[in-house]
Amino acid sequence: MLLSHAEDCIARCRALALHTEEPGFTTRWFLAASMHDVHRDLSAWMRSCGMTTRVDGVGNLRARYPARDVGAPVLFIGSHLDTVPRAGAFDGILGVVIGVKLVELLGGRRLPFAIEVAGFSEEEGVRFGFPFIGSRALIDELDPTLLMKRDQDGVSVAEAIRAFGLDEVMQGEEQAHAYLEFHIEQGPVLESLGLPLGLVVAIAGQTRARVMFEGRAGHAGTTPMAARRDALACAAEWIGEVERYATDTIGMVATVGRMEVLPGAPNVVPSVAKLTLDLRHEQDSIRECGVGHLLTRAGTIAARRGIQVNSEMVSDQAAVRMDSRLTEMLRVAVEHAGHTVHRMASGAGHDAMIMARKMPTAMLFLRSPGGLSHHPDESVLAQDVAAALAVGVEFLVLYT
Amino acid sequence: MLLSHAEDCIARCRALALHTEEPGFTTRWFLAASMHDVHRDLSAWMRSCGMTTRVDGVGNLRARYPARDVGAPVLFIGSHLDTVPRAGAFDGILGVVIGVKLVELLGGRRLPFAIEVAGFSEEEGVRFGFPFIGSRALIDELDPTLLMKRDQDGVSVAEAIRAFGLDEVMQGEEQAHAYLEFHIEQGPVLESLGLPLGLVVAIAGQTRARVMFEGRAGHAGTTPMAARRDALACAAEWIGEVERYATDTIGMVATVGRMEVLPGAPNVVPSVAKLTLDLRHEQDSIRECGVGHLLTRAGTIAARRGIQVNSEMVSDQAAVRMDSRLTEMLRVAVEHAGHTVHRMASGAGHDAMIMARKMPTAMLFLRSPGGLSHHPDESVLAQDVAAALAVGVEFLVLYT
Repeated sequence: MLLSHAEDCIARCRALALHTEEPGFTTRWFLAASMHDVHRDLSAWMRSCGMTTRVDGVGNLRARYPARDVGAPVLFIGSHLDTVPRAGAFDGILGVVIGVKLVELLGGRRLPFAIEVAGFSEEEGVRFGFPFIGSRALIDELDPTLLMKRDQDGVSVAEAIRAFGLDEVMQGEEQAHAYLEFHIEQGPVLESLGLPLGLVVAIAGQTRARVMFEGRAGHAGTTPMAARRDALACAAEWIGEVERYATDTIGMVATVGRMEVLPGAPNVVPSVAKLTLDLRHEQDSIRECGVGHLLTRAGTIAARRGIQVNSEMVSDQAAVRMDSRLTEMLRVAVEHAGHTVHRMASGAGHDAMIMARKMPTAMLFLRSPGGLSHHPDESVLAQDVAAALAVGVEFLVLYT
Repeated sequence: MLLSHAEDCIARCRALALHTEEPGFTTRWFLAASMHDVHRDLSAWMRSCGMTTRVDGVGNLRARYPARDVGAPVLFIGSHLDTVPRAGAFDGILGVVIGVKLVELLGGRRLPFAIEVAGFSEEEGVRFGFPFIGSRALIDELDPTLLMKRDQDGVSVAEAIRAFGLDEVMQGEEQAHAYLEFHIEQGPVLESLGLPLGLVVAIAGQTRARVMFEGRAGHAGTTPMAARRDALACAAEWIGEVERYATDTIGMVATVGRMEVLPGAPNVVPSVAKLTLDLRHEQDSIRECGVGHLLTRAGTIAARRGIQVNSEMVSDQAAVRMDSRLTEMLRVAVEHAGHTVHRMASGAGHDAMIMARKMPTAMLFLRSPGGLSHHPDESVLAQDVAAALAVGVEFLVLYT
């Protein structure tokens, strides 16, 4: 019975993926124009399920399904609607679609608690180099100085909010009592175990930093190798160390995902290389030690080459454990739905790690075929979505 | 007497450097709008010196000073008017300004040969990744397929030519009989010897190639290090080999000057790294061997990482010897002007290496303070410009 609903969820995600800033791909950053189209399509469905919808001060789509009684607690079910560049159709948005589908499956029946489905406006950190803006705002932990940050086109967060048609007053949600997130695993673990679902018990800590190497430009034909201060060659040496260090440390992943080289002419020795570092580990002490070691090495390599290095911490998320009581409830729901319980840590950051600061939070992973995510070929199996819906139905019974 | 003229040359270069696509810097690519301003200022001065001016089919500024008699031979004096991004005020354009100044110094006196000062529209290869467009067109060796090449904004050469207000008919210059180029050294050799001028006897050969590494995008948090196909990490390893190989080969320089990383998000393992290679050596066999070795190594490194590599030759310039008779004439002119003759090879490519295919060519270097070029702090000493003017005056006498 749930399989056709699962197929409907997948079809909705694929249709929503067509709302993009880059035709032929799914690229939808924080407050992009295409986000209006996503809101329009989702809101129409939400309202048909008996929900009232609004877009809050940072662009989160918020749909409320009322409780049986006024003043009852609120269960949030959510995930994010923004994407990385050239993304797949399921990262984030599937969790929102599953939330609405669970309300649809209630068929108008009221529960002793309200349900609010939250489609967060920003999780990936693409536009402003700063992640989780949507969920941070919802729990009232958004630093006001963030409003002054500017994107690559020089547009500030405050300007982007106004351009999207919102005022920039952000206020936290005081009524929330719990948060549940469904999300694709985005990794190869569940597939390798042959399991549809994973019970997330913790989310790895994550450090993001910017590193800039600054040497000296020179003519590519007349500057002898020994006289160069090549910022790119320096950065390349450091990237090699980052890769080796993470490979040698069990459970660590480290990524240089963005890199800009200036002035960027084929016949000029590069003067500047700017790059990002993303380093993650389940254990905070190991992550902190790794970041410290690698930034020290950047300084050592740069000094030997007569190059300046500057680094800046962008964000530093401690590892987060899910709420034990709510997670136990989710575990029982998985069992009641007839599936194997597999406890696991998430290598990826999620809105759940932000929400957990304010309220009991639990999270369920769906298997990612090929472990593939952040890629146009990202997919999900209908049978796995059906399994997640069955768990969601059981969870709503248990939460009552 | 020539010192005030030298100072005038420097002042003109500094004024022309204000015509730019990037306020605060000198950035002037092939057929950029700011090139119109350069043409306007130079043409006014050229006409005041008794020259007729025109802009040819690829945007070269051509100023003719007539000979005493019709049908006399033509001596070309020229260099280029385009720049690298964030350039100095003298690379290229000083050679054009010196050419006009030599005509101005004639004070209207006619010679047995005509002088044509050529300000080439394109030498650096910045806009279309293909260098020497101006001089190639002048000697009628411009491949017509070049017209279809597109810049980063998708504009083709043909469209750029029309947008600049020209038609795209390019035709070679049949009347030219010799070519003389003045240019800053852009390297540290003359300064280290304490000499104002260098007699260029050869120009190093140069290979330019594009290399693209293509791996697989993945989530930076959930893709274990061992399962990655990180195009940037692969490129970084190769850049290290390029640097080591060139450092270990006497007289070789190799540069990765441009690099683009896709998709370019901090939390996505890079799928694509595109970069440029520029490799130069005086001896063609050593250069060819180096390019072959490094591209083979790119394949080996990429294969070990499960990454695809594609490389494309952009240009391949053999080392070029200057004309021995004309260079001997220039040597005598240096001696007559009272300066030490220092013979040297040029590590940089110049329009002279293109012009030498069609006509006797000679080239004179001016000392570069600090060896600095392709940088806003690039400079030239007034006494060195005066020395070059003195040599030019002597050369015109000898060429008669």
